[in-house]
Amino acid sequence: MSAEAALDKNAIRAEMLAMGRAARDAAAQLARSPHARRNEALVAAAKAIRAQAAQIIDENAKDMAAAEKKGLSAALLDRLLLTPERVEAMAKGLEQIAEQPDPLGQVIETRERPNGLVIEKVTVPLGVIGIIYESRPNVTADAGALCLKAGNAAILRGGSESFHSSGAILACLQAGLKAAGLPEAAIQRPGTTDREAVGVMLTMTDFIDVIIPRGGKGLTSRVMNESKVPVLAHLDGLCHTYIHEAADLDMARKIAVNAKLRRTGICGATETLLVDRAIADTHLKPILEDLVAGGCELRGDPEVLLRMPSAKPATPEDWDTEYLAPILSVKLVEGIEEAIAHINRHGSHHTEAIVTADKAAAERFMEEVDAGIVLHNASTQYADGGEFGMGAEIGISTGKLHARGPVGAQQLTSTKYRVLGSGQTRP
Amino acid sequence: MSAEAALDKNAIRAEMLAMGRAARDAAAQLARSPHARRNEALVAAAKAIRAQAAQIIDENAKDMAAAEKKGLSAALLDRLLLTPERVEAMAKGLEQIAEQPDPLGQVIETRERPNGLVIEKVTVPLGVIGIIYESRPNVTADAGALCLKAGNAAILRGGSESFHSSGAILACLQAGLKAAGLPEAAIQRPGTTDREAVGVMLTMTDFIDVIIPRGGKGLTSRVMNESKVPVLAHLDGLCHTYIHEAADLDMARKIAVNAKLRRTGICGATETLLVDRAIADTHLKPILEDLVAGGCELRGDPEVLLRMPSAKPATPEDWDTEYLAPILSVKLVEGIEEAIAHINRHGSHHTEAIVTADKAAAERFMEEVDAGIVLHNASTQYADGGEFGMGAEIGISTGKLHARGPVGAQQLTSTKYRVLGSGQTRP
Repeated sequence: MSAEAALDKNAIRAEMLAMGRAARDAAAQLARSPHARRNEALVAAAKAIRAQAAQIIDENAKDMAAAEKKGLSAALLDRLLLTPERVEAMAKGLEQIAEQPDPLGQVIETRERPNGLVIEKVTVPLGVIGIIYESRPNVTADAGALCLKAGNAAILRGGSESFHSSGAILACLQAGLKAAGLPEAAIQRPGTTDREAVGVMLTMTDFIDVIIPRGGKGLTSRVMNESKVPVLAHLDGLCHTYIHEAADLDMARKIAVNAKLRRTGICGATETLLVDRAIADTHLKPILEDLVAGGCELRGDPEVLLRMPSAKPATPEDWDTEYLAPILSVKLVEGIEEAIAHINRHGSHHTEAIVTADKAAAERFMEEVDAGIVLHNASTQYADGGEFGMGAEIGISTGKLHARGPVGAQQLTSTKYRVLGSGQTRP
Repeated sequence: MSAEAALDKNAIRAEMLAMGRAARDAAAQLARSPHARRNEALVAAAKAIRAQAAQIIDENAKDMAAAEKKGLSAALLDRLLLTPERVEAMAKGLEQIAEQPDPLGQVIETRERPNGLVIEKVTVPLGVIGIIYESRPNVTADAGALCLKAGNAAILRGGSESFHSSGAILACLQAGLKAAGLPEAAIQRPGTTDREAVGVMLTMTDFIDVIIPRGGKGLTSRVMNESKVPVLAHLDGLCHTYIHEAADLDMARKIAVNAKLRRTGICGATETLLVDRAIADTHLKPILEDLVAGGCELRGDPEVLLRMPSAKPATPEDWDTEYLAPILSVKLVEGIEEAIAHINRHGSHHTEAIVTADKAAAERFMEEVDAGIVLHNASTQYADGGEFGMGAEIGISTGKLHARGPVGAQQLTSTKYRVLGSGQTRP
């Protein structure tokens, strides 16, 4: 490393530590702030976003121009793009978060002990949350707002592609904080796109309580592997739809098409279809024909290819691939046991569905499949905090600790035991 | 490293991975097991412990002899020692865990959505839990039993000092599993005391879902720093008792003495006493005299020394020291703000108490102090799952993620969303 690069590294480290200290102080203030004031900040931020819409779109244009020059794919360019409608949706999102109930100060349990001690378990903020994400600029608004709602300070480290857009959005969030008399350091971001900033964040155990990665496999596995700070895991969504031999054909066709094709770029999209061998001759072809008619490319195992010669042969990698595209791997299985084993081996513990009219089979599937969300007779595309009635979410946790499934403001809290005594000493 | 050492390392690695695979399989069986069968295993294990008491004590004698030869301290020797009473307490502990309600399959939330989807959040096992602990052999029984109760497989890595004792206890747990028709691999331990086994466990992300360290600062910080597997933090208990200016003197004396001296070796013991300067002339001396009369060594700041010349001067390290001994650091503070700031800076987020007749001050303390347990007018020695009415516990979590405070069987679970549909596809 050159002396200059070392100097830069030290400067980034110093900046991040200062940011952490400021976040820790801001978090202490947020923890004491009334719910109404945090909501006031959210509403004021929404107002600022509307007032600054043209400015935000101008800044986004800089990001778009750079991204086009760099030759980003059409899908990535679409994720990056902000339109007047998308800016309005961001503002509305903040207002919706403001309308949700207070996640803090909820008394989850109360026990009165024989010795007269009253023990309450209440929700409290987590503290400082570090969010590391990729190109979508709207994550800046959503993630910042959800952290604020739950009384947490946030350090947002977005992708370099959206640096200008995110900066303009962050300015609106900070204007909202200021208008409500809350510290602007409650939502911050590094002033650099240098990857070194991520490395420093992952070691800031004194100043960051949780890291949430949002993005592709490369990002999340780097974070999970390197972080000294606890990580709330958000892995990829390698989701399956399993058509059991007792499935209603019509329902199976509709669910398979929706689960794969409604939106192919979301984490709840189905990537692999499993079909019982017993119904290969009756169900497989109509389902696959619907998918092909919808524009889906199929990759099948040898038995599938026999029945659907237009499909491509699946390679072993296909069973472990999250396409996020109109591509589906398809496999015949001998029955529910093989289906469950395949899913537990290849799935990412995100969202898994069975289609069947057999209740006992559905029960077994939902019990034995190891995933945050298991569905019976419904599309995997329902994996979404909004569809669960939870409001906005920061993502779908695929880890088993702390929160599993959609993570909204309520999941960004911890708890504290309050013990009320009258002089008790322990015998 | 010599070729022989490398070979040993590889052998340990292979053994641990095989153990992980067996644990994963056992966990899948436990997850499907009825509650009655897990309890049957616990009761059978208690029976085996009683039947094998002499054998367990013989094995313990080997550990004791080696420990004495190594010159372990009296406190450590006492932790290691098993007596007939202690063996009986272990057996009784298992029976008590068997009597607790099933932590699994509890429906925590149910939502019916406008589209007819019924969404249930139910408790499920975490999977495989790795527990890394030090000399107390009874942890083998408690930790193994709590994991089993919650349908988790356990890999127990105890300290080398208790190797023989733990082996004898583990044999009884496995006999219980066998008697109930559950896989013996549900509770395992490495066949070696080599530290390499710990290193391998901390990287086994495919086979271990959570690591729980139980022991001193050296052990827990190594685990938290090195682990690639998520860690449920159990740090030290650097607990404070704060005597506010509105404290009743009589209550303050009783609570201070109990909090420090009832048992000095437990994590909920108070290590630092903070007293408001306003009551230094009325309250400080009587409280400190009671402590000295109880056999406590005092380490005071200069103002304390003025009033209590027999105390030793406190060094800056004293404010960060968990003595686990009859030693107390004592400091005057200007008021509640300084007390809270001192605690949040020096405490370990474990258990913190205020003594005051002023309700507003108590509220403020309990809100602003960042700890798993905050008490008003009660001794910090109540920090204990049993005292909370939770039954046996594996320790007190000082982290904010997943579980905070006492960790019993209920806290060793995760959740899963079960979504029941009737053919819904997402618009």
